[in-house]
Amino acid sequence: MFFASDNSGPTHPEVLAGLAEANKGYAMAYGADALMEEVRTRIRGVFEAPDAAVFLVATGTAANSLALATLSRPFQTIFCSPVAHIHEDECNAPEFYTGGAKLTLVADGDKMTPAALEATIAGEQTRGVHGPQRGPVSITQVTERGSVYSLPELKALCDVAKSFDLPVHLDGARFANAMVALECTAAEMTWKQGVDAVSFGGTKNGLMGVEAVIFFDPAHAWEFELRRKRGAHLFSKHRYLSAQMAAYLRDDLWLRAARAANANAARLAEGLRAKGADFLHEPQANMIFAAFPRAKHRDLFEKGAAYHLWGGTIEGDPDEMLACRLVCDWSITADQIDQFLDLI
Amino acid sequence: MFFASDNSGPTHPEVLAGLAEANKGYAMAYGADALMEEVRTRIRGVFEAPDAAVFLVATGTAANSLALATLSRPFQTIFCSPVAHIHEDECNAPEFYTGGAKLTLVADGDKMTPAALEATIAGEQTRGVHGPQRGPVSITQVTERGSVYSLPELKALCDVAKSFDLPVHLDGARFANAMVALECTAAEMTWKQGVDAVSFGGTKNGLMGVEAVIFFDPAHAWEFELRRKRGAHLFSKHRYLSAQMAAYLRDDLWLRAARAANANAARLAEGLRAKGADFLHEPQANMIFAAFPRAKHRDLFEKGAAYHLWGGTIEGDPDEMLACRLVCDWSITADQIDQFLDLI
Amino acid sequence: MFFASDNSGPTHPEVLAGLAEANKGYAMAYGADALMEEVRTRIRGVFEAPDAAVFLVATGTAANSLALATLSRPFQTIFCSPVAHIHEDECNAPEFYTGGAKLTLVADGDKMTPAALEATIAGEQTRGVHGPQRGPVSITQVTERGSVYSLPELKALCDVAKSFDLPVHLDGARFANAMVALECTAAEMTWKQGVDAVSFGGTKNGLMGVEAVIFFDPAHAWEFELRRKRGAHLFSKHRYLSAQMAAYLRDDLWLRAARAANANAARLAEGLRAKGADFLHEPQANMIFAAFPRAKHRDLFEKGAAYHLWGGTIEGDPDEMLACRLVCDWSITADQIDQFLDLI
Amino acid sequence: MFFASDNSGPTHPEVLAGLAEANKGYAMAYGADALMEEVRTRIRGVFEAPDAAVFLVATGTAANSLALATLSRPFQTIFCSPVAHIHEDECNAPEFYTGGAKLTLVADGDKMTPAALEATIAGEQTRGVHGPQRGPVSITQVTERGSVYSLPELKALCDVAKSFDLPVHLDGARFANAMVALECTAAEMTWKQGVDAVSFGGTKNGLMGVEAVIFFDPAHAWEFELRRKRGAHLFSKHRYLSAQMAAYLRDDLWLRAARAANANAARLAEGLRAKGADFLHEPQANMIFAAFPRAKHRDLFEKGAAYHLWGGTIEGDPDEMLACRLVCDWSITADQIDQFLDLI
Repeated sequence: MFFASDNSGPTHPEVLAGLAEANKGYAMAYGADALMEEVRTRIRGVFEAPDAAVFLVATGTAANSLALATLSRPFQTIFCSPVAHIHEDECNAPEFYTGGAKLTLVADGDKMTPAALEATIAGEQTRGVHGPQRGPVSITQVTERGSVYSLPELKALCDVAKSFDLPVHLDGARFANAMVALECTAAEMTWKQGVDAVSFGGTKNGLMGVEAVIFFDPAHAWEFELRRKRGAHLFSKHRYLSAQMAAYLRDDLWLRAARAANANAARLAEGLRAKGADFLHEPQANMIFAAFPRAKHRDLFEKGAAYHLWGGTIEGDPDEMLACRLVCDWSITADQIDQFLDLI
Repeated sequence: MFFASDNSGPTHPEVLAGLAEANKGYAMAYGADALMEEVRTRIRGVFEAPDAAVFLVATGTAANSLALATLSRPFQTIFCSPVAHIHEDECNAPEFYTGGAKLTLVADGDKMTPAALEATIAGEQTRGVHGPQRGPVSITQVTERGSVYSLPELKALCDVAKSFDLPVHLDGARFANAMVALECTAAEMTWKQGVDAVSFGGTKNGLMGVEAVIFFDPAHAWEFELRRKRGAHLFSKHRYLSAQMAAYLRDDLWLRAARAANANAARLAEGLRAKGADFLHEPQANMIFAAFPRAKHRDLFEKGAAYHLWGGTIEGDPDEMLACRLVCDWSITADQIDQFLDLI
Repeated sequence: MFFASDNSGPTHPEVLAGLAEANKGYAMAYGADALMEEVRTRIRGVFEAPDAAVFLVATGTAANSLALATLSRPFQTIFCSPVAHIHEDECNAPEFYTGGAKLTLVADGDKMTPAALEATIAGEQTRGVHGPQRGPVSITQVTERGSVYSLPELKALCDVAKSFDLPVHLDGARFANAMVALECTAAEMTWKQGVDAVSFGGTKNGLMGVEAVIFFDPAHAWEFELRRKRGAHLFSKHRYLSAQMAAYLRDDLWLRAARAANANAARLAEGLRAKGADFLHEPQANMIFAAFPRAKHRDLFEKGAAYHLWGGTIEGDPDEMLACRLVCDWSITADQIDQFLDLI
Repeated sequence: MFFASDNSGPTHPEVLAGLAEANKGYAMAYGADALMEEVRTRIRGVFEAPDAAVFLVATGTAANSLALATLSRPFQTIFCSPVAHIHEDECNAPEFYTGGAKLTLVADGDKMTPAALEATIAGEQTRGVHGPQRGPVSITQVTERGSVYSLPELKALCDVAKSFDLPVHLDGARFANAMVALECTAAEMTWKQGVDAVSFGGTKNGLMGVEAVIFFDPAHAWEFELRRKRGAHLFSKHRYLSAQMAAYLRDDLWLRAARAANANAARLAEGLRAKGADFLHEPQANMIFAAFPRAKHRDLFEKGAAYHLWGGTIEGDPDEMLACRLVCDWSITADQIDQFLDLI
């Protein structure tokens, strides 16, 4: 009954097998390993982008910060949702990596709307040299509240960015979960709508710790490499990053794992709905934000369930409705979900 | 016949087993995993430092840059050897992480001497507010040229630093190789001589990619944690870093691997000496800098040997003596060494 | 009829005389000039703070950014109004000088309320190492919309900051205008309410370009000096900054100039009120935000008046009410004001 | 008898008159003043560069740091003399402004030689992504030791830079003194030899505190403007910078002042030579590095002379030869020089 996060579960056995397989003999260091060639080819294939620049790093924050630093200048501001990971959960890493760029928050909600994005961008850079200049737009897909932008929604946001000549970054820490929810291709969820750079997450979906950064315009490649090295994110024994990502892409493991995770969340949501739970957002991928009485949370915690409360603490009126976040990865079993539902 | 680097070899099987072992069920993310408790306890034990602050990162550059940033201020300068990894091989990562501190190079050699260090430190901060202020001293042990500072040499450098009230950082990417060479304890090679912070390497000695950063004064702990997160070096699935380091420390794997590596280098050096090779530096740990005729290098490369030339290229006079760097890790076999020697 | 800004007017004649007076013979460079001694003594006297550290810089942005950098760490966030100069008008200078700290905006208004400040601070640093840590509170007095915090309001904001153990910075680009409006002392407007550091403006009130930075705790002095030098804000011919500030403080020029500026604004506001203008904020110091029909603005511009429109452009419906900002410095004459009022 | 520095003397009366003249009525802020138009036109004329981008800042460190930041990237290294102001006297400002670029020192002397520059540049960027990348070359003219590069020497250095495709920055804190010494034009000392950007000093040659930054390729203009603002170096009352620079350029004041300074230094050098003083470098512009017995220094200081000792302190053997630096600006009189010489 562990729904705390999709970074709490185990590494997928196929990935572990890939690591063991890669652990033979000697390999060129720093990304010149043969497996990285396989990864590059596979990602270009998946994204239908034969020229894309592809890099691996080990954390999502590194992927986001390095991608945004490459797309921006220190006197600019980056546009994102107020609940974006880059704003709330990276301890100023984007500010650090960009050399002091600002983040401008687009309205109050989870998902940015094209209208709010347009108004926010239009409101910046109205003071000549005095205010920050307009910089990249960063979209989180799946959002931090579990929502998934539809393809038309993505296109509309990208169109706004393009109308101001701004690049678009997609924080895809849960890229596969979104793709599975949308039943679309990787190309459709990215460059076909106007996305320029992607943080292509693997860690939350079965890897030990690997994310790819993809630029559809390879002109960014060399600068990114230098920024990655300068940020201390270039691995000497790089083959172990490559091996994870290669295993992830072989036999569609990434999609199988995401389908399992989303299906688990759907089963959980259905059960909760049947029990009368309120949802803060309609679950779409592998995250559920639901509310039940505080007494129920207490009971569940006592019985060993693990997850995060949302917007309140365990202390207080037992009858008050209190929200929580429940996240499923591929490893959760139907039994665990049913056991949890039985307790509610 | 792969002597290119100690980051080219495989992960030690005991480490891989540790990873597989750790890959069960759910674990708290971001360093709150139970294995990290084991790691902390083991490192404190090894270093006889019950209060030490202990952190894991995945690259040596991250360990060095974050440690130095924590020990310095942006208006200071860091004292190091001109061949230090932090100066030559980190693409300005220390400058980036410190917010723009300078590196001041101590004389021309590989090993810093106390006299040169003292003169260099004394020469800085003589211009009041105009020049950079004196900052940490960083010592590389094993040096980048394969030398090992003796304990009295370490003490003399630390004494110079202390006489100026400056903290000392030890870049121990090959910490275990040095300890084995010196036949001393971890405490003797660090705080007993005056070292304040250590980059305790694992990657070059059998791990996939983990280094520990150790501060003997735990007052630095919280700042380091924030800098690590802001630098995007805090792993969500941290248990896989812990698992590697735990396996490394269990049953003295780290010392066994280093002993094997050093013994391999000794066997190789002995063989080379017998063949009449010149040594640029007397080999002490697991690196050898030796010179033989260019024609010999050509021959070896053709026959499949892999290593780096040093200070010259493969093109040129076949009779000219040309140096190379040969590095052994634990995984090199006696057969491989003998095969290589036979070819010379 | 020049109401565009209080940085558009001339330097006060007494300041120019002070510069000429200072322009004799040789002076120690870089702040060691004798006039700086006078300035230090005068400011300590004015602020009833005999131990205060006092420094001069030439721009308000330098004063703010250097003060905030000294009071904060790069992994923190600074709390300020969404219309603060440090947020809107410094092109990411605070982010640059702090090494990448964030700015967190307190609610939507011009003046921060203690309740909004408390809620905002409480909302940060709730995610452990993941989000930015709480940093300084920066208060703008006079605000960018012409309002003046009362002493109890300042105290309430400082009390909130202190309850979280956070330092308080006062951006006093229009410090004298606020003091004159409040009829209080410099000590009452700063450390007596809990302010730790002040940007004490001079440029908008008759100087060519000098602001003082004052820390009531002199422990910050040396770090500030280094940051000022590193930021390229230490003047070699520093005596010309000192001379301006000395002239400003002699014979209460700073208060005389501010009284004149505020009186000019009051005369203008009174006249506008009589003409039926709407005020966006009740004028308190030397700035007026008032609305009249667009046709009237057109007419005034044609007749040579200079000021900034606010929230709209000169193109559009002639009858629509359109706001503007009118700023008076000490140099505006009653005639100019009356001439302007006559045109309305 | 004040030979401490050319930043210790008074502002030239014509500059003060220019400031008084500029101090009338209202002027657009932030560089939009009419005088800046005059300055831009005059500088373009002087440099025979009708498209040059021209900006004013108030300190030499700001000019250098902002120019170098505009010409470089944070993962690069800047090539300069080990005694360059940017290395020794700016408290890491270049590292700060560039976002953490490194400075690589070219050999040991004062003046860089083309051979040493070439060898140094060739030695960098030999490690792919691991070391810093090659960045701008910065040349100081007059050097910090009072030497002047001849035009062929400048050309040879620029040619080396160009052969690596690197931009060239000229730190011309004493630009006019060098031009007068070389009897050449501004164009000949800059772009005609291959210089891309110039810090065109005024402060050491009669201004209160103004330096121009000139880019011969105007493509850098907007980035520089943003960097200047972000660095807090954009003055609101910019007309007072413009007024100084305009006065400097009118009627060749800059050349008259430099001629006077150089002539003063020549008179002083001649007198010293007659007295048997040793010169560390042959004086060429307005700085003299000479040695006489320590007892003589003691005597001179007692009698009121002011200058800096070089490489030693006043304590010690009275007969030992001890070097000093003597600097003349335009304001030194023949009487002062003769009085000083009489004392020796």
